[in-house]
Amino acid sequence: MRGEAEFISALRQLPLHPGARNLEDDTAVLEIGGETLVITHDVMVEGVHFRPDQDLFDVGWKIVAVNISDLAAKGAKPIGLLLGYTLGRDDQRFVAGMHAAMEAFDVALLGGDTVSSPSARSFGITAIGRAVHVPVPSRSGAGIGDRLWVTGTLGAAMVGHDAMPDGDAETTLPYRQPRALVAEGQQLAPQVTAMMDISDGLLLDSFRMAEASQVSIAVDSKAVPVADPGRRMECLTWGDDYQLLFTLPDGVAPAVTATCIGKVEPRGFAPLFVDGEPVTNAKGLGYLHD
Amino acid sequence: MRGEAEFISALRQLPLHPGARNLEDDTAVLEIGGETLVITHDVMVEGVHFRPDQDLFDVGWKIVAVNISDLAAKGAKPIGLLLGYTLGRDDQRFVAGMHAAMEAFDVALLGGDTVSSPSARSFGITAIGRAVHVPVPSRSGAGIGDRLWVTGTLGAAMVGHDAMPDGDAETTLPYRQPRALVAEGQQLAPQVTAMMDISDGLLLDSFRMAEASQVSIAVDSKAVPVADPGRRMECLTWGDDYQLLFTLPDGVAPAVTATCIGKVEPRGFAPLFVDGEPVTNAKGLGYLHD
Repeated sequence: MRGEAEFISALRQLPLHPGARNLEDDTAVLEIGGETLVITHDVMVEGVHFRPDQDLFDVGWKIVAVNISDLAAKGAKPIGLLLGYTLGRDDQRFVAGMHAAMEAFDVALLGGDTVSSPSARSFGITAIGRAVHVPVPSRSGAGIGDRLWVTGTLGAAMVGHDAMPDGDAETTLPYRQPRALVAEGQQLAPQVTAMMDISDGLLLDSFRMAEASQVSIAVDSKAVPVADPGRRMECLTWGDDYQLLFTLPDGVAPAVTATCIGKVEPRGFAPLFVDGEPVTNAKGLGYLHD
Repeated sequence: MRGEAEFISALRQLPLHPGARNLEDDTAVLEIGGETLVITHDVMVEGVHFRPDQDLFDVGWKIVAVNISDLAAKGAKPIGLLLGYTLGRDDQRFVAGMHAAMEAFDVALLGGDTVSSPSARSFGITAIGRAVHVPVPSRSGAGIGDRLWVTGTLGAAMVGHDAMPDGDAETTLPYRQPRALVAEGQQLAPQVTAMMDISDGLLLDSFRMAEASQVSIAVDSKAVPVADPGRRMECLTWGDDYQLLFTLPDGVAPAVTATCIGKVEPRGFAPLFVDGEPVTNAKGLGYLHD
């Protein structure tokens, strides 16, 4: 078996918890004792998600941020983290980076496991939050006639990445230490019909939202705020920005600053249209694991 | 920084959730909506926790079992799992092994993450359960005068391991596919003063229970049921048996079949006494990560 999509299909043969949402969302939703928990798990691998020579402060920050971003996209307030950690160089730097992110996003450590490894290190975080609004926003709720919105500016992580390792701190910060939009997600959760964070690129994640919602999404690429207008398409396909992508009924203004970049249409022959051009295949749209 | 203990000390500088139990237990305890969740995270690394040529069915089984065993030791009923998975050879075998264990322990998949890696693979599971009894048993509750008990026979995993790869299926089963004692843990939870599962060896885990409880524990090695009496000490220091180790007030009979193997004493100059001999250092007692 090769590729993430095929593996996830295999996982769907396992007994799935109803809160798994058929493995079609970024998070699980667990109703317990009148509360609703949102739970996510993300892994970063040396040589894949971070460079072997990267400052582990930034890696510690980032693995917290990407998990908290998943909670943010569900309008959840972070509660706690579990850490799976491979010992190695610069453990203190990693902990310091986690610490800074945990304070920034107001989340505490719950537990975890520490291992050694003969080769590439990997780090995993499980993040648990409490939903502030139910039903918890999903990827699959985009309705025909809705408008597509995005927070912030896309491509800032790309610009930061390309300035590494010698670029100034401000330019590289969006890549090194992305922000999870926790407050924004909580404000948007009661309004949105669908919401997700952009981890793998705006176009790829729009494609996924359209697939999950069984609609077509039309993106107006020129409407998207980008960090480098000369590389607009790259900004739309680079990941790691962790902005929020969401749909609202036509006429509803978002509770936070955001830009309308498209609309939701009946399912046509492609899930995604970019400036009117159909996109039938996710390849080339963003960061695909295979 | 080197070693698990030092790293855990560093983690204690992070904001800790009260449910983290100061990172002194195997699981976190999260009170939410009038319910109490028990949460654990364990990682297995290729070349460390399993052999590169091992049947991934057994690895998939085992990573589920070791996590569920942590829930069992807290008297929790399993709810769901999140999986961090590194793609590679025999993914279907891994899923099939997980599937068998998930049916055996009645737990469903909640979600997770899939990654690739340039080198050794690692797998992480986060398991979530619901406590059937509160307060949730901890490692730290052993009281002076209590008796120390253990379920089952120790060393069966060792005997199974040593018969690999050509031993018969029955002999190797305890190593390849350990059982998590979920029902037993739930029956014991209301009775015990302290409880944990034996993952790293009876003596090492007894040492840890004594440390956490700030008592001394005296183990009568000859009382311990072992799989190979000719290798009694090895059976007491080998891990992977996932039996339950617990303390009960003197005179209380356990709700499940178990053997009394020692007693809890005021803290002497060593946390652990084996047949009257003091053990002041955890080295050599079992499987230590460093």
